[in-house]
Amino acid sequence: MNFLEERIVKDGIVREGNVLKVDSFLNHQMDISLFEQMGEEFKRRFADKPINKILTIEASGIGIACIAAKYFNAPVVFAKKSKSINIEGEMYVAEVESFTHKCKNQVIVSKKFLNEGDHVLIIDDFLANGCALQGLISIVNSAGATVEGIGIAIEKGFQAGGSVIRNLGYQLESLAIVESMDAATGKITFREQ
Amino acid sequence: MNFLEERIVKDGIVREGNVLKVDSFLNHQMDISLFEQMGEEFKRRFADKPINKILTIEASGIGIACIAAKYFNAPVVFAKKSKSINIEGEMYVAEVESFTHKCKNQVIVSKKFLNEGDHVLIIDDFLANGCALQGLISIVNSAGATVEGIGIAIEKGFQAGGSVIRNLGYQLESLAIVESMDAATGKITFREQ
Repeated sequence: MNFLEERIVKDGIVREGNVLKVDSFLNHQMDISLFEQMGEEFKRRFADKPINKILTIEASGIGIACIAAKYFNAPVVFAKKSKSINIEGEMYVAEVESFTHKCKNQVIVSKKFLNEGDHVLIIDDFLANGCALQGLISIVNSAGATVEGIGIAIEKGFQAGGSVIRNLGYQLESLAIVESMDAATGKITFREQ
Repeated sequence: MNFLEERIVKDGIVREGNVLKVDSFLNHQMDISLFEQMGEEFKRRFADKPINKILTIEASGIGIACIAAKYFNAPVVFAKKSKSINIEGEMYVAEVESFTHKCKNQVIVSKKFLNEGDHVLIIDDFLANGCALQGLISIVNSAGATVEGIGIAIEKGFQAGGSVIRNLGYQLESLAIVESMDAATGKITFREQ
């Protein structure tokens, strides 16, 4: 097990319905030392890519992206979730349909901060069905920029998001891929990487 | 002028209605080198305080708080904004009324991550009327924890939020305090600190 898998086993909580709570270190309380390890590991995995910008989405992707950004010496742009279509100024907009929550959301990024010369690393905390991630990729493509890679903290390997993105040819690196979880025993099985 | 005031003059945009747009470096695209300077400066200003936790609020406080956290060697907790009263589990809840937006919101933090032994530095990007900040202080007090200080990037000194908080006796440190802005000329005047 790597450092993140060990931490998930130690402090993650498995709930009924394939819910994995990691709010004590990842997405409500945030362990910055852990984020630094994650940033270093993303840099190792994307070392050969000419990344000049990191794109994430509010809210829980922001901390990971900001700490990772130090290792890439790049600014971070975070996409905003919006239920409104009343956008001030010039924005890239992606319509994102959540299969889980049965609702449509917009993901928006100002056109000022993403251009065709940009080489983008997308970072987020979780990947399950991948709806938010699909929106971010769509926005990078709208800008004519290049998705150099996608770095995820925890992927639910038993949901479709990851395989769809890999099938599309993107370099998707998830630091921990959960293959299965058992709420009764608390046991978590990770995919060998 | 300090480093943040200089950056505001260089890249900030003044709009009608006392709007200061700093989305190219602070709250949409984020300049991580600048955030590191801000983190160092917060550490200098709160050097004598026994801070063991940083509290911020989604979304645009998170990046600043995470970078600042390195200088305090402390975890970050971010409060969530919620319109719902349907809260799963045990949460501290503050009702926050926005005078600007004429709406009520809830600010919530899990009780697991804030306790009476905690010495908290609150960090946010903007302070104007101070509604969100009042909610964060209320939550720290509900937990029986101690507000050791409040670190803000940009305060609108011509709005009431800052003076209310200082009147209450809190150590509030704003790295830049805007006294006035002129949308016609773009001129920004800062308070001497």
